[in-house]
Amino acid sequence: MTELETLLKRADDNLPSSLDKLFALLRIPSISTDPAYRKNCAEAADWLVGELKTLGFAATAYTTKGHPMVVGTSENAPEGAPHVLFYGHYDVQPVDPLDLWESDPFAPEIKDGGNGRKIITGRGTSDDKGQLMTFLQACRAYREENAELPVKITVMFEGEEESGSPSLPAFIEEHGDLIKADFALVCDTGMWDRDTPAIAATLRGLVGDEVVITAADRDLHSGFFGGAAANPIHILADILAGLHDETGRVTLPGFYDGVEETPEEVKKGWEQLGETDQRFLGEIGLSVPSGEKGRSVLELTWTRPTAEVNGITGGYTGEGFKTVIAARASAKVSFRLVGTQDPAKIRDSFRSYVRSKIPEDCKVEFHPHGGSPAIHLDYNAPFLKKAQKALSDEWPNPAVVIGMGGSIPIVGDFQKKLGMDSLLVGFGLNDDRIHSPNEKYELTSFHKGIRSWIRILDALAK
Amino acid sequence: MTELETLLKRADDNLPSSLDKLFALLRIPSISTDPAYRKNCAEAADWLVGELKTLGFAATAYTTKGHPMVVGTSENAPEGAPHVLFYGHYDVQPVDPLDLWESDPFAPEIKDGGNGRKIITGRGTSDDKGQLMTFLQACRAYREENAELPVKITVMFEGEEESGSPSLPAFIEEHGDLIKADFALVCDTGMWDRDTPAIAATLRGLVGDEVVITAADRDLHSGFFGGAAANPIHILADILAGLHDETGRVTLPGFYDGVEETPEEVKKGWEQLGETDQRFLGEIGLSVPSGEKGRSVLELTWTRPTAEVNGITGGYTGEGFKTVIAARASAKVSFRLVGTQDPAKIRDSFRSYVRSKIPEDCKVEFHPHGGSPAIHLDYNAPFLKKAQKALSDEWPNPAVVIGMGGSIPIVGDFQKKLGMDSLLVGFGLNDDRIHSPNEKYELTSFHKGIRSWIRILDALAK
Repeated sequence: MTELETLLKRADDNLPSSLDKLFALLRIPSISTDPAYRKNCAEAADWLVGELKTLGFAATAYTTKGHPMVVGTSENAPEGAPHVLFYGHYDVQPVDPLDLWESDPFAPEIKDGGNGRKIITGRGTSDDKGQLMTFLQACRAYREENAELPVKITVMFEGEEESGSPSLPAFIEEHGDLIKADFALVCDTGMWDRDTPAIAATLRGLVGDEVVITAADRDLHSGFFGGAAANPIHILADILAGLHDETGRVTLPGFYDGVEETPEEVKKGWEQLGETDQRFLGEIGLSVPSGEKGRSVLELTWTRPTAEVNGITGGYTGEGFKTVIAARASAKVSFRLVGTQDPAKIRDSFRSYVRSKIPEDCKVEFHPHGGSPAIHLDYNAPFLKKAQKALSDEWPNPAVVIGMGGSIPIVGDFQKKLGMDSLLVGFGLNDDRIHSPNEKYELTSFHKGIRSWIRILDALAK
Repeated sequence: MTELETLLKRADDNLPSSLDKLFALLRIPSISTDPAYRKNCAEAADWLVGELKTLGFAATAYTTKGHPMVVGTSENAPEGAPHVLFYGHYDVQPVDPLDLWESDPFAPEIKDGGNGRKIITGRGTSDDKGQLMTFLQACRAYREENAELPVKITVMFEGEEESGSPSLPAFIEEHGDLIKADFALVCDTGMWDRDTPAIAATLRGLVGDEVVITAADRDLHSGFFGGAAANPIHILADILAGLHDETGRVTLPGFYDGVEETPEEVKKGWEQLGETDQRFLGEIGLSVPSGEKGRSVLELTWTRPTAEVNGITGGYTGEGFKTVIAARASAKVSFRLVGTQDPAKIRDSFRSYVRSKIPEDCKVEFHPHGGSPAIHLDYNAPFLKKAQKALSDEWPNPAVVIGMGGSIPIVGDFQKKLGMDSLLVGFGLNDDRIHSPNEKYELTSFHKGIRSWIRILDALAK
């Protein structure tokens, strides 16, 4: 047996005790949004500190204005080995409505998941306690085999991820030195499917703006004034309709500055995933891709920027009818960004466009929301390639490098504040029901997740 | 003195007693929308029946599901004289907020209105008790001079005008024979200004439709789906933006069928009114006419059809931001109609246009609202010309034939159900504060209103 094989066997042998540990953590109802569970959050943090210590880490639960931040640091690693920061979170979502749970959310069980699969049930199994424990139990396999950890490891377990991470930016600001590493491993995402592991290499950024258009100084009777008085809903509709051309491209000047085409080899990898427009859209009751023509749904949602109206309101919106010409109308518009699109420039371009469409006797106001650039790893970065190979060795199908349509704030903070890239690897599945009743994690996700980290740590050191 | 001069003098001499009668009616708080005033509405109806009897009319307060409908019929008129139906309403608007009234709304007074004018204060003075009493006291002048009424007169006083006339259609249906005349005189409108009487000869019709567009079968996260999933707000904005071309014309096929240009002489009459875009729009905080280019605000609001969005809603409209792609978006759209535009055809054309813009995997639903054609008198109709001359004889400035941008349902019902045209003549002024605290009617409106009807009745008989 190679050293790696020994470690993997250790993980296999440890599975029962790994589950015991996971269950102990799952039994703590560490709901971060509900002040009633404050003590439980502290208890989960302390439990993790204890675990880290048994792994030989120096570990502390740092007090924040909210729930504690657990940070642990491993003993020194071999000369020249990289330093990685592992991130996970120990807090969980609330469990209402409780009556929809088939068993107690805080009394985890192993159940038959159908088709011969075993599942671990309970709140936090997939999001994110099960996931973070895959990493700790990978470290334990090294420890128990008396093997030195192959890379220097800092871990950071947050207790407020489910409540918007209010204490996180200040913590990074204050304790940046403590957690700064060569790159981060973030374990809070999913696999492509049951057999195909995934690494998220791109995350779209976001810029939001609320537009409020005011025309007359009061709501008007459309009989008396209709045909002569400006209608702000018409102005707004015209503006929003003009945001896209007939090919689905966004019309704002300079919008596509910094947007690059995805390398052909990456797109080929996606083609092998067998995703179709029909399946992707069929799940939500649609069938025709919207947006830019001639691109697949994966390309559209992972690598292309968008302009979307998230909300619109104006005039009478109640039951029945009121023949009013509204004094004002407003819309919330957001842009998903990719590549090196500059949030500030996009916002400016949007506002200039809107202003150019406002009649001289009408007014417009803007209320900004968010403004974060896209995150994009170099597709050829060695640590990405190494992790991809390690994951491919473990799972039935090769690991795929994917994009994510949404943003993950922590990844942006690591990038912006610590100049640190993140490798997003996780073992959740789409049907894990995170944030919903009957959350579960596949036993396979847990077991092979531990094995995956053993392989990744091994690969990263080489 | 001619017979007409004698009648006018009688009206002058009667002014104090005419005011006594008006005040008696004004003191009855006949608020139709509030069940607490049900008895007062009946009392006002009975009071009017009494008045009509003293004028020699056969009069009855007909019971309806709501408040009574007063109908009175004069003795026979001279052979060959026309038969007119006079319409007014005895119900009034509520008086809240009461603390904004400078005196008791149901204790009418004559006050100094500034600039040497006298005003009659109280709820219903202008809308519509003061107005309907001008007609009754014109009839009284004839009666007291022992002059035969020159035309056959039926009067109809409604008690539910301020609550949407729920009983009116059924009453016309059932008692059509009772009220059918050659044409109607409707006294519930205003003068152009203090010195210029007005006859409304056109009223725009109305068609409303609510459009509900459904895309995905649930609200979507714009990160995961943005760029690939149809956004119903985009579809709706595109539809609404396409309703008008760059000259402000409505783009629906066939929309302008039945729309005719206003005769030059009528437009010339309007030019003399001195209305400017700036004054008209300045009052509501605007300055640039919207809608069809190259037409005055009076032309736009009185004689041109419109398409207006009265309300729009979709997605997240609360405080802050939510990056959602909505499952549905909806708008309430109404069309003001003129000439012989056909409401059903306009609705069909609109719906066809909307359907043509709905992607094949999205759905659209419509909810109809209203659907009444425009009312338009023949500008050369003899009764209009006669009334115009009579009014011009009474007031400092000649009477102007105007349009009205809105609809008056009763006029449509008379037209549709009884094939009866209506002449809209009233003596209210724009600053009468109808529906608001401190409603008033100019003493001049009341006095010269009575004299105006004497002249009109005289003229109609010739």
